Amino acid sequence: MNGTDAGASIRRVGVLTRPDLHAADRVLRTLVSWLHERGLSACLSEASARLAGEGLPADAQTVSDAELSSCADLVVVLGGDGTLLVASHVLQQPVPVVAVNFGSLGFLTEVALSELFPTLEAVLAGQAQIEERRLLQAVVRRAGHALVTDDALNDVVLTRTSHSRILDLDVWIDGRFVSSFRSDGLIVASPTGSTAYNLAAGGPILHPALPALVLTPICPHMLSHRPLVVPDQATIEVRVRQVRAVEAQVTLDGQRGLDLQPDDGVVVTRSPRTLRLVKAATRDYFEVLRTKLKWGQPATRRA
Amino acid sequence: MNGTDAGASIRRVGVLTRPDLHAADRVLRTLVSWLHERGLSACLSEASARLAGEGLPADAQTVSDAELSSCADLVVVLGGDGTLLVASHVLQQPVPVVAVNFGSLGFLTEVALSELFPTLEAVLAGQAQIEERRLLQAVVRRAGHALVTDDALNDVVLTRTSHSRILDLDVWIDGRFVSSFRSDGLIVASPTGSTAYNLAAGGPILHPALPALVLTPICPHMLSHRPLVVPDQATIEVRVRQVRAVEAQVTLDGQRGLDLQPDDGVVVTRSPRTLRLVKAATRDYFEVLRTKLKWGQPATRRA
Amino acid sequence: MNGTDAGASIRRVGVLTRPDLHAADRVLRTLVSWLHERGLSACLSEASARLAGEGLPADAQTVSDAELSSCADLVVVLGGDGTLLVASHVLQQPVPVVAVNFGSLGFLTEVALSELFPTLEAVLAGQAQIEERRLLQAVVRRAGHALVTDDALNDVVLTRTSHSRILDLDVWIDGRFVSSFRSDGLIVASPTGSTAYNLAAGGPILHPALPALVLTPICPHMLSHRPLVVPDQATIEVRVRQVRAVEAQVTLDGQRGLDLQPDDGVVVTRSPRTLRLVKAATRDYFEVLRTKLKWGQPATRRA
Amino acid sequence: MNGTDAGASIRRVGVLTRPDLHAADRVLRTLVSWLHERGLSACLSEASARLAGEGLPADAQTVSDAELSSCADLVVVLGGDGTLLVASHVLQQPVPVVAVNFGSLGFLTEVALSELFPTLEAVLAGQAQIEERRLLQAVVRRAGHALVTDDALNDVVLTRTSHSRILDLDVWIDGRFVSSFRSDGLIVASPTGSTAYNLAAGGPILHPALPALVLTPICPHMLSHRPLVVPDQATIEVRVRQVRAVEAQVTLDGQRGLDLQPDDGVVVTRSPRTLRLVKAATRDYFEVLRTKLKWGQPATRRA
Repeated sequence: MNGTDAGASIRRVGVLTRPDLHAADRVLRTLVSWLHERGLSACLSEASARLAGEGLPADAQTVSDAELSSCADLVVVLGGDGTLLVASHVLQQPVPVVAVNFGSLGFLTEVALSELFPTLEAVLAGQAQIEERRLLQAVVRRAGHALVTDDALNDVVLTRTSHSRILDLDVWIDGRFVSSFRSDGLIVASPTGSTAYNLAAGGPILHPALPALVLTPICPHMLSHRPLVVPDQATIEVRVRQVRAVEAQVTLDGQRGLDLQPDDGVVVTRSPRTLRLVKAATRDYFEVLRTKLKWGQPATRRA
Repeated sequence: MNGTDAGASIRRVGVLTRPDLHAADRVLRTLVSWLHERGLSACLSEASARLAGEGLPADAQTVSDAELSSCADLVVVLGGDGTLLVASHVLQQPVPVVAVNFGSLGFLTEVALSELFPTLEAVLAGQAQIEERRLLQAVVRRAGHALVTDDALNDVVLTRTSHSRILDLDVWIDGRFVSSFRSDGLIVASPTGSTAYNLAAGGPILHPALPALVLTPICPHMLSHRPLVVPDQATIEVRVRQVRAVEAQVTLDGQRGLDLQPDDGVVVTRSPRTLRLVKAATRDYFEVLRTKLKWGQPATRRA
Repeated sequence: MNGTDAGASIRRVGVLTRPDLHAADRVLRTLVSWLHERGLSACLSEASARLAGEGLPADAQTVSDAELSSCADLVVVLGGDGTLLVASHVLQQPVPVVAVNFGSLGFLTEVALSELFPTLEAVLAGQAQIEERRLLQAVVRRAGHALVTDDALNDVVLTRTSHSRILDLDVWIDGRFVSSFRSDGLIVASPTGSTAYNLAAGGPILHPALPALVLTPICPHMLSHRPLVVPDQATIEVRVRQVRAVEAQVTLDGQRGLDLQPDDGVVVTRSPRTLRLVKAATRDYFEVLRTKLKWGQPATRRA
Repeated sequence: MNGTDAGASIRRVGVLTRPDLHAADRVLRTLVSWLHERGLSACLSEASARLAGEGLPADAQTVSDAELSSCADLVVVLGGDGTLLVASHVLQQPVPVVAVNFGSLGFLTEVALSELFPTLEAVLAGQAQIEERRLLQAVVRRAGHALVTDDALNDVVLTRTSHSRILDLDVWIDGRFVSSFRSDGLIVASPTGSTAYNLAAGGPILHPALPALVLTPICPHMLSHRPLVVPDQATIEVRVRQVRAVEAQVTLDGQRGLDLQPDDGVVVTRSPRTLRLVKAATRDYFEVLRTKLKWGQPATRRA
């Protein structure tokens, strides 16, 4: 699943930022110059171009977010984990991504700002490690038709909406009935998403190399309902069961939502798409876990 | 906190039902006759009178829900735990309540239909045990003013609403800052409510005699955030902290909700009101727990 | 991983029971006759022969537990999940196993007594489904040497022993340091074992088809330590870190234990062995989960 | 429960340390001089005197640990939370205790070394706040007799011992049967102990002012078994139920243990004794929680 990439084939480097990341202006200009000096051209997203301001080299292109992955052979994302979630949605072509965190270390944006240029050099030299993160695909079905089809890097979440009653969600895996979950909702998370909302809801951590999904009920009434980890070849179908009008919604990556109606179904499978993430040379997966989850020293005591 | 009641003083018995409990028609008529035979008059809520139908004794009064507790010396509630939550809101006067479950045993409606008349006889004979269940009081404060004041038997819950971002809730107890809870919300539950939503969210069971409240964060991001049990003399203040517009709401007993705005505060204390619940003679608190939570036999195995 | 088996090649059927299962005497005799009538010979474990008593057909052999899997082409195990754990240890050859529960449905012994003969007929007709359950292998290393090597179907568990201090366990996966777990111990469970001790310790359910292991700390001091699911190709090393003398032990399947010394290491990998379990025709994995975990109806309420 | 103390009545100050706390030598000598200068005499425990070394003022007494609380009007404990647990056992008289942590902040030893003398001055001036922490009392009953009676500040814990089978513990509260807990054991914790082992086992935090105990099963097989908080006037009886010989033990504060036999009972109530803890002027209970449990900032993320 992982491997290194022929850096020689990289000619154009895309840049994507959080639109309000004003602190990125200097870095953006430095990055474009750095690319220019190496004979590489830059494709800037509109927000990146705006933040970078005047005086960019003439070969720096500005493109819409949607064009970015077809324009570039490599994309640098500046922001945090949220920005990378947006990027995973926007970058439809499987270009490698260098995810740089502007604030503190992210679960996903594990390249620090100070490591940006060394990491780019490693990529260009064909020495960087690239990790493929699987995406999920969700299809919302209504009255026998696919209403919406979309991908998610982290999770597909069904929840009740405000003031509405508790949800009854019926779940099938590969056509076999699993259970009815009376709960606030249900999370279907990828290994990447297992350290996000899933963790807050009591789900386990899934190693990124694991070909699996996890189903985690949110505040289930049935106290013996537990997170369930299944192979990622599985087809998971969740149906909103309700006699009276219910307010439920499905949300992808906490960013894109759709209101559901009674008897709507949401089918989750592994997406054919992956996010190709350039690894930071200096830290591994477990180090990121230790830092993010503060595993440095025990929090409780015993005599 | 508990005690028996002078049954001799009971002259009028109120009846409250779930409006759609059509199966209660016969029981309602039998109950009214039973009271009539004993020289007691019946006050029926409008829904109860409608369900009972024609041919009630002439001394059977029909009153609005709001008038019920001032009309009666004792109230019979027919339905389930949800009906009793409504009753605890409607019955502003502290009359004893016989809570009869129509379906399966409830956490609160522990009197079975077959035990209705024996229980009434015990009450009239002054031999029934009455348990006082404390209510919570919630005050929603906006811009320095008390916007709404209301009571809850189970819980006061702050949650985010649909499609909205994660909540940051700042909590103070008796004026001292506790923590900021980044989460889906926060439950403040009474001992009575500890077996409801609180349990689904991972909170502990509080014995009804315990003068305590429990604060349970819902899916907290901080994995070391845990339910916190405090004396019920405490004043708990929860403030919605958010720079941009947020959608949050406060809900009482899962029934009455109000949308919150940034910087709104919700102050929860013990209410001066209690619900005076007539105990079933045949079962104690732990038996109800064992039945409802299926503590009959271990669910998992070990070799 | 799963498939059907050529039933035609079955000539000899082994029988294994719990030594104290006196209630099995009639079934054992009926089973031996049934096999005899079909021209199949029976190999009985010593305990099974003792329980069956006098008057078995002349072609019924009695062998030691250790010889059973080389003597038979198929083995019937009578007892409960604990008996099957013993069987998975004793049956070194990969013969298919029909696991019959004598009491209530087991997670593993999903064939009811009333289904024994229909299931055997399906096996002989080559129509039964066989599920391969992966075993774990544990190697205890002391001073650079492999002290003990053994297999487990459910789990390999490191725990502290009585009166001893809290454990500090250092964990590496594929040579990379994960964390130090200050806790009562650590469970490494297979998908099969995920519904056993792992579940009681707060771990997730792993579908049997998932090529994974789960590491679940037991009562960890660090509240952000969570169960971690990893690919079953992983090599997991756990080392007992302690300055002063510690009392720790490793236990396989809750049945076979060994005391550990400071600096001992336990290396857990996937075993080359599998348990070949004949599926009951009438129920699938999720039905077993629903029954065993009482997922029939919600236990808590909300209004 | 809390209050200030007439500092004027303090004449003799006891000193208790962890015997191996060699780093305390200078502090001990400074402390004794400081007391001497103010006309107060010091009573040193034998370990403290040994660590302090030669050259103490003539009026400094050395006494056994057991004599310390009758010798002194105030005791300074130097060490960590474990040292304070020992102190709470040794100091049978209810003298106020200044608990100084030598390493990092403790849940209980909340006075930093740099705050020792300001805190002592506050105590002598009658300006310090003193918090009463309730102790538990455990009576081990065998064959109708009280075998052992002992106190615990944190918790009374029943657990299985090495290699032994799973425990079945029957629990009664005030003579009413609660449930049989099939588990690794059961914790009965005070509010003080709620942040210790109880927290690791999934129990809630109890505010120190709450007159309550919490029963928390350790890895219960029954997934709907949850921590149960009861008034501290309750009498809790736990009985080891087992047909065959079982190995179980009861441990107080993780320090003092006793092996149990089948049918032994352990009765836990509130002890008449309290630990009178001098509060640090500069931090409150919630600040200690925030620091110890690292509530500074969210650990997980959501987009």
